[in-house]
Amino acid sequence: MKIPPVKGTRDFYPPQMACRNWIIDGWKKVSQRNGFEEYDGPIFEHLQMYQIKSGQEIVEQLFSLQDRGGRDLAIRPEITPTLARMVNQQVNALPRPIKWFAVPRLCRAERPQKGRLREFFQWNIDIIGEDRADADAEIIFATLDYLRMVGLTATDIRAKISSRRLLAAVLTSIGIPAERLEPIYAVLDKKPKLPAETFEALLAEQVPDKGQAGKILDFMALDSVTAVAGIIESNEALGKAIDELCGVLGVLNAMGVGEYCGFDPGIVRGLAYYTGVVFEVHDIAGELRAICGGGRYDNLLRDFGGPAIAATGMGMGDCVLEILLGQRGLLDAQVPKRRLEYFVAVADPQFAEAMYEVTAQIRSKGHSANFSYKRGGLSKQLKEAVGQNTGRCVILGQEYRDARQVVVKDMAAGTQETVAVDQFLARLG
Amino acid sequence: MKIPPVKGTRDFYPPQMACRNWIIDGWKKVSQRNGFEEYDGPIFEHLQMYQIKSGQEIVEQLFSLQDRGGRDLAIRPEITPTLARMVNQQVNALPRPIKWFAVPRLCRAERPQKGRLREFFQWNIDIIGEDRADADAEIIFATLDYLRMVGLTATDIRAKISSRRLLAAVLTSIGIPAERLEPIYAVLDKKPKLPAETFEALLAEQVPDKGQAGKILDFMALDSVTAVAGIIESNEALGKAIDELCGVLGVLNAMGVGEYCGFDPGIVRGLAYYTGVVFEVHDIAGELRAICGGGRYDNLLRDFGGPAIAATGMGMGDCVLEILLGQRGLLDAQVPKRRLEYFVAVADPQFAEAMYEVTAQIRSKGHSANFSYKRGGLSKQLKEAVGQNTGRCVILGQEYRDARQVVVKDMAAGTQETVAVDQFLARLG
Repeated sequence: MKIPPVKGTRDFYPPQMACRNWIIDGWKKVSQRNGFEEYDGPIFEHLQMYQIKSGQEIVEQLFSLQDRGGRDLAIRPEITPTLARMVNQQVNALPRPIKWFAVPRLCRAERPQKGRLREFFQWNIDIIGEDRADADAEIIFATLDYLRMVGLTATDIRAKISSRRLLAAVLTSIGIPAERLEPIYAVLDKKPKLPAETFEALLAEQVPDKGQAGKILDFMALDSVTAVAGIIESNEALGKAIDELCGVLGVLNAMGVGEYCGFDPGIVRGLAYYTGVVFEVHDIAGELRAICGGGRYDNLLRDFGGPAIAATGMGMGDCVLEILLGQRGLLDAQVPKRRLEYFVAVADPQFAEAMYEVTAQIRSKGHSANFSYKRGGLSKQLKEAVGQNTGRCVILGQEYRDARQVVVKDMAAGTQETVAVDQFLARLG
Repeated sequence: MKIPPVKGTRDFYPPQMACRNWIIDGWKKVSQRNGFEEYDGPIFEHLQMYQIKSGQEIVEQLFSLQDRGGRDLAIRPEITPTLARMVNQQVNALPRPIKWFAVPRLCRAERPQKGRLREFFQWNIDIIGEDRADADAEIIFATLDYLRMVGLTATDIRAKISSRRLLAAVLTSIGIPAERLEPIYAVLDKKPKLPAETFEALLAEQVPDKGQAGKILDFMALDSVTAVAGIIESNEALGKAIDELCGVLGVLNAMGVGEYCGFDPGIVRGLAYYTGVVFEVHDIAGELRAICGGGRYDNLLRDFGGPAIAATGMGMGDCVLEILLGQRGLLDAQVPKRRLEYFVAVADPQFAEAMYEVTAQIRSKGHSANFSYKRGGLSKQLKEAVGQNTGRCVILGQEYRDARQVVVKDMAAGTQETVAVDQFLARLG
């Protein structure tokens, strides 16, 4: 009986697995050097966890199930609710700031398309317990530290940074009442994906006053934070929001990634829980969805039954990233190919026992080694070694019987040496 | 709103995550040095995948769900069906033998108890396309290579090895018809878990003939393969099964792990798909469930719609292993603790910009570094560094302003040196 894989999922054969591991190992390495500690939660949580703050799109895309007691569960579509739950559970025992990362497998019942699958991996970094702009800058720096490490330059990608707080101050300044902000955010979030006319029509539905709508369009066209003061009359909230955003950009400059970063008022973020600085990284060519996104979400832990603690974070999926790295030739150049260090071959079946012994010893000393199960001639064994991309073949033949020596053949150079087996093994450490 | 985690799952806070990573990294390392390549599949498959061969116990414990098209899915309770599906899909393109490993997250709706959770990780190694005893021995060697590497000795654990083929030959030799074998396997599998009387009563239900039942009990009491010939009259099938098992034990001896291994006719394995050599590793104290188990399953790929290809493999969960390693003190001694390489501190806020710059540079050179968000005095910053188990503090003060020098303080030794910042950074590579 032949059963296909589930639509929207991936099978990771060894070459695809090598690529996935290379991406995830890079995420882990950069997280650690940026001072983040790894955590993880279960693959499923109680369904309610995702009905609190995840937003309508995610709720509609849940893979839900029941446990044996009939409780409603869901496979995690994001890990932030789990993070909030875990931090709340130990909130008094955890020294702050909490700098945590995770590389969870997530599932969303989306329509599969380019860069979007029903199962994917996502790098998450979060700083909890710090409301200063330093923390927002750290999140953006760590993100760029990774993207830079894998070879993307400021001509490939751009971190577009804005602030929900700034947006709220601007909208409030021009006379929009507080309860109207959320639906306007939803419209502004769509701007980059829509033709100008369609966007302006949508905006007019939410903001019928042409003067107000015009101010919003003026703001959305700005390319520097300081220019905001030129179009909106200053007030305390606006001043604070501008200072905060300038602070973030200033730290990023000092950290040496200024050339990747810029203010972009078009960045609003879809998720409902953002409260301050928000950002996305995009390919400059503009061909792909956002590579990653994040921002400040100071109310989330409170919404999950904990104390009010400041928090800021970022999520980066593996699908868009892999497409971009592939386009730039950065996968072929960097993902390691299959490689076997040693292949132990016998010139005659009488050396089988020594072959087992030498193979086991090489492995126990931390090096990879195989031998042939086929009992074929030496040339067939060497061919099998080549098929496994072997570095060196260790050949047991007459020299082994006569003097406990092996022939070590360098497969790339074609050179070989005869050496006492004990000496060969001792060299391996 | 406070929502608890789902029963039978684990939250991995950084210390628990470090332990999980240490276990899984060890599995990966040993797999690679034994010549296995990593693969993985999706977290869920079509429900039918687990109704073919997984056995009743697993089918009853499935977490099942539906996709948006109403198709029945299940979270994977094991990865072998996925392996069979993936190999079958590319069966003509994959060079043999296929030596693959995986470290999947699996879910089973079991009653949570010691060593059994509803979500766990499992190391899987499989060799496909090889019917010789070499492959069975390789699986058992790799298993022991890992257990030995993490510090377990032949006084802690024992690999108990038997063979479904041998058992079938013995039962057939004493007159049990082929169609009676499967229900008898199910009874024999329970022997180690039952009092002798209960087991004998169960056996009598399946084998009412006292002469036959007595022969089976005699066989189950043997402790060497060669002794089988002493109680069962020889025939071709029995001779082949004995030779095969002796072959496996012989290779394991040659590979240097003979002291861990022994014949044990009580090993039958619960899963329905085993066809040849079977084994389990147990703690010698006998306090825990099996640490791992595996064996030959030559019909599985065919059952999943592929060609008949020989296969043998092993699965090891993380739960029992972690309990045993904890009992032996092998976790505390080996799981790495949180460690930060550098903490960049400022003697005065005027050095903040340099602090950002130096931190970023240390990180970009591959070393972990943090700074304080708190803007406190130097002693508070150093205290924060101690809290993060920092190796060295890099202090920016008057020397930096005067001569672009930093003070590098070794936190364990208490020593410090003053060095030009460029020289300090250059040393980092």
